[in-house]
Amino acid sequence: MGLAFALFLTLYVLRQDQGAERLREISAAIKEGAMAFLRREYQILAIFVVVVAIALGFIPHLGGWVALSFVFGAGCSAVAGFIGMNMAVRSNARTAAAATKSLNQGLRVSFRSGAVMGICVVGIGILGLSILYFAFHLDPDEFIKIIPGFGFGASLVAIFARAGGGIYTKAADTGADLVGKVEKGIPEDDPRNAAVIADFVGDNVGDVAGMGADLFESYVDAIIATMTLATVAVVAGLATETTAWYLPMMVATGGIIASIIGVFLVRVGEKPEMRALLGALRRGTFSASILTAGFAALAVYFLDANWGVLWAVLAGLVAGVLIGESTNYFTSYSFGPTRRISEAAQTGAGTTITRGFANGLMSTLPPIIIIAMAIIVAYKFADMYGIAIAGIGMLSTLGITLATDAYGPVADNAGGIVEMSGLPPEVRERTDALESLGNTTAATGKGFAIGAAALTALALMLSYTQAVGLKLTGINLLNPAVIAGLFLGALMPALFCALTLNAVGRTSFAIINEVRRQFREIKGIMTGEARPEYGKCVDICTKAALKEMIAPGLITVAAPIIIGFVLGPLALGGFLIGAVVTGFMIAIMMANAGGSWDNAKKWIEKGNYGGKGSDAHKAAVVGDTVGDPFKDTSGPSLNIMIKLMAIIALVLAPVLVGVTGILD
Amino acid sequence: MGLAFALFLTLYVLRQDQGAERLREISAAIKEGAMAFLRREYQILAIFVVVVAIALGFIPHLGGWVALSFVFGAGCSAVAGFIGMNMAVRSNARTAAAATKSLNQGLRVSFRSGAVMGICVVGIGILGLSILYFAFHLDPDEFIKIIPGFGFGASLVAIFARAGGGIYTKAADTGADLVGKVEKGIPEDDPRNAAVIADFVGDNVGDVAGMGADLFESYVDAIIATMTLATVAVVAGLATETTAWYLPMMVATGGIIASIIGVFLVRVGEKPEMRALLGALRRGTFSASILTAGFAALAVYFLDANWGVLWAVLAGLVAGVLIGESTNYFTSYSFGPTRRISEAAQTGAGTTITRGFANGLMSTLPPIIIIAMAIIVAYKFADMYGIAIAGIGMLSTLGITLATDAYGPVADNAGGIVEMSGLPPEVRERTDALESLGNTTAATGKGFAIGAAALTALALMLSYTQAVGLKLTGINLLNPAVIAGLFLGALMPALFCALTLNAVGRTSFAIINEVRRQFREIKGIMTGEARPEYGKCVDICTKAALKEMIAPGLITVAAPIIIGFVLGPLALGGFLIGAVVTGFMIAIMMANAGGSWDNAKKWIEKGNYGGKGSDAHKAAVVGDTVGDPFKDTSGPSLNIMIKLMAIIALVLAPVLVGVTGILD
Repeated sequence: MGLAFALFLTLYVLRQDQGAERLREISAAIKEGAMAFLRREYQILAIFVVVVAIALGFIPHLGGWVALSFVFGAGCSAVAGFIGMNMAVRSNARTAAAATKSLNQGLRVSFRSGAVMGICVVGIGILGLSILYFAFHLDPDEFIKIIPGFGFGASLVAIFARAGGGIYTKAADTGADLVGKVEKGIPEDDPRNAAVIADFVGDNVGDVAGMGADLFESYVDAIIATMTLATVAVVAGLATETTAWYLPMMVATGGIIASIIGVFLVRVGEKPEMRALLGALRRGTFSASILTAGFAALAVYFLDANWGVLWAVLAGLVAGVLIGESTNYFTSYSFGPTRRISEAAQTGAGTTITRGFANGLMSTLPPIIIIAMAIIVAYKFADMYGIAIAGIGMLSTLGITLATDAYGPVADNAGGIVEMSGLPPEVRERTDALESLGNTTAATGKGFAIGAAALTALALMLSYTQAVGLKLTGINLLNPAVIAGLFLGALMPALFCALTLNAVGRTSFAIINEVRRQFREIKGIMTGEARPEYGKCVDICTKAALKEMIAPGLITVAAPIIIGFVLGPLALGGFLIGAVVTGFMIAIMMANAGGSWDNAKKWIEKGNYGGKGSDAHKAAVVGDTVGDPFKDTSGPSLNIMIKLMAIIALVLAPVLVGVTGILD
Repeated sequence: MGLAFALFLTLYVLRQDQGAERLREISAAIKEGAMAFLRREYQILAIFVVVVAIALGFIPHLGGWVALSFVFGAGCSAVAGFIGMNMAVRSNARTAAAATKSLNQGLRVSFRSGAVMGICVVGIGILGLSILYFAFHLDPDEFIKIIPGFGFGASLVAIFARAGGGIYTKAADTGADLVGKVEKGIPEDDPRNAAVIADFVGDNVGDVAGMGADLFESYVDAIIATMTLATVAVVAGLATETTAWYLPMMVATGGIIASIIGVFLVRVGEKPEMRALLGALRRGTFSASILTAGFAALAVYFLDANWGVLWAVLAGLVAGVLIGESTNYFTSYSFGPTRRISEAAQTGAGTTITRGFANGLMSTLPPIIIIAMAIIVAYKFADMYGIAIAGIGMLSTLGITLATDAYGPVADNAGGIVEMSGLPPEVRERTDALESLGNTTAATGKGFAIGAAALTALALMLSYTQAVGLKLTGINLLNPAVIAGLFLGALMPALFCALTLNAVGRTSFAIINEVRRQFREIKGIMTGEARPEYGKCVDICTKAALKEMIAPGLITVAAPIIIGFVLGPLALGGFLIGAVVTGFMIAIMMANAGGSWDNAKKWIEKGNYGGKGSDAHKAAVVGDTVGDPFKDTSGPSLNIMIKLMAIIALVLAPVLVGVTGILD
């Protein structure tokens, strides 16, 4: 049903006018660059997937079905990412063309394009898991062993897609900005900037394909974690085993239906007011949340499960909404925290950075307290199974929240195309409004993605402890191996961020030099007589991002394996939770610091503290440059990292149990 | 013996020439400002101490002796801080005067002044604990209940002294720099800058008094943690209870003797070479380490303890040295990481920040692996008692390492005095060399203070678990309250850093406005005809720092109490370890990022990438401004925070046990 709806939306978008020749031309260049990147990325990933699949097939205690499930998961993730990005690159010019008519038209095209992605991700996720369920559920032990493979496949694709896409988009973005805006003083998205097409491509490969893979992974991992904790639900008297398997699927399915209804509710009158637009989006997501709660109640009722499960779902759902609101407070320029960063920009870049960093740190307060409470409530009502299904509650409205997220880059691209093709300023104003709306929803979406990742990773960690038989003894914090594991787990997010930040730094350095070279060597770029070689920058970004994504990805895969086999299964438990706890905190800090720097700059650009071109604005631009890789590369990748490590532990659990007599 | 040696050094320093009238005058102004701050700080602290003492006295299960022990600990810490700072403010002009003769003379006076602080801290620590031992050891249960009070007192003074001093010093420093260097283009320490005296005062109240209180706390807490784990040592067959109490005192005493010998070894020939100076300091600290190892072996032998204890001591000692070396690698401009930050400065402030931040994150790799290994080794050879005594191993050479640390601010002040009083440039060159040496040793010292704090806090946490009777069941990581505790524990360092960073921001904002006002309103400052009102800036800093230190301090005290009584003793265990693990990682990140930004600037100032005044230099100055509160306010305060929360848990353990039947 979801996929049929996605097809319906796709046909709607493709029916729209593509606009004038110039629009099509730019859009085609973006599409070409984005598709080339995705093709090459998938080629590299295919090698990884095949190697890991062969390894899984030959490892004792795992075998061929786990390997196949893994390949299937990787394939589903790749397909979801491809469909989403394919849609996005076909919608940018159409959105631009629609925006020439009215703001509302522009919103409709771009939002429906985003909704294709959102609904596809959840639809493919449920479809893939259903196929596995019907194929294997008759042998419960085998089923529980095989489904984590699906999640592993999805996670492996996600970590590379998120890191690679994130490095690409931010390297191109900062490279373009530092030479264009700062050195040459030309506006954003100016066609004279050689990196401008690479920047547009980056929006698609990072913020669409990368994010799609990220949330596909969260979604299926949350369901898998809940399924593998079914025995806990049985022991706790919450449901039968079959019911405990059905419940996550049913709650998620209810969420899809709610999301579809929510998408229909996103419509405004013809008056193009910003507040009305935001209201429309919020009406969609809030309605979806409430409907999901209703569907979840029906699922619990008809499956004859314990009502405690419903409370756990609601704990997750409410926590997700609250974390989103908290993110909004700390990153929107309508509130004090971000405005104080703009204020600090008056005394220079140093104070801007410090204030924004402090804001990011402070913003971890509400989400951590909310998650801690959600964990306690979910556990109280439905044991460990409750923590897992709370994650599903949080992610159940993913169809529509991802739509509000994925619509942003489309609007962003559309705005860029409008600027490059010299359309009248009122059109740019409309796309700016769409973009600005996208920034707000993106920040909210990010907070909720991080919260969901923490719950999911925690649930996977708990599944792992069940799988290695730590039910009774537990993981004692007073064990030195567990303590060492905790320390090493806390190291992982730091290491991962360091690698990705440096990767962005190196890649943008290459882009900066290339753009500078073109300005220097190609005469007539500044006067508009000659056209820069956009392809060169696209090429540099593609090569560099694909190279740079390898190290962080490999480390994430290798670390839990090394810890598990060297320090033992107990230490691995400590390691996972150390990574989740620290990763959660750092991911929020980075996402919110980055978001607030971005909006502090926008607040100044709206005419405060001297406006555009003032010293305060220059300081704020520095903040934004620092914040970009925080919020779009390193921060979001941490979500995947903590889940990937946990699911690797879960996949390897039977192997660890097999050799545990020797090693631990 | 240590105190006698400190007296001998004091007399040596006071015998030195105070230099010309102008030197005395500036020194007197610094002394006045610093003493006024300390007096007012201690007045505020006295109120806190009295309130807490009364509370402790009336809380059931604790009582008057715990309260007295608490007051005694607070008093000892205050005295150690006072002596150190008193010495420092009397040595700055003397160092300046000595530097007019030779570099070696300057080193001798400043280093011996630092050594007074170092030896006093360890001497007073051992003396205070010995008095408690002789007064109470005949009733072991009472003794174990009373000594944590001493540590609590020391910790409470430390958190306020470190936070208050840290806010003072960095607000004055960045305030002076941003107006002086960046806006007016006048050199550092220029007498025309109204904030210059406040900056000098800051060095003393932050880097001397604050750091002294910090390390006094680490030192006594490590010994207390080991003593309270004596029963573990008895059960593990490592020693008798009395021996297990003696061992930490004896190892520490051996370290004092080794430090005194080390101080004597710090001497150079008359050739004033930088490398020779560094070599002299390293000879002192390395010899002290080796001697300490020997003394520890003697202690184990004569007290007839298990040799496993020695291995645990050595694990800590070696880990401390290795962490120091790692810090040096990541923060000194002799190595790649810092030079790459200088390189990144060429493309602006944004890339400088990102690169330095990534470097800080990356630098957590070796220390975390080293600490994890030290924990496993220490536990393997001497159980939990081993982890505690490894902390003592690391801190045993504190006498001399603190000397190399505390000497820095004296040299810093001396350099400033030379600049202000217009002494010839070759004298300033000499004090610059001393200062630069101080920066290197300060960075190393910081890394080792953080490592020691992590081990000590961990040991206190383990003591706490013993005291609340979690010996058998342990702290199960699969318990939702423990998981919630871990998340909330990870929140604390973030919250604490956010508060202190913002405090520095607000205070420096006030200073900036005051300096700007004076330049504007007092005619003739720039031409040297009028003198700025230094006292105003000193006053603003004092008031603001004292006000701003309250919130972070109170939160640190309140959090473990709230967690313990609301979520229960198990959650408090999770909370403590969450704070230790995350706090350790963030503290290293902040200290090393800050250190490397500072030195990246220095590397450019040495003529690389365009040298002083170039765009790269300006970008590097922004990095330094961001890094200053990272490395001197927020980062080091985290050390105290994690220990303070753990010792509060330990002090409250009997109370928690008393009410646990109701609450958990």
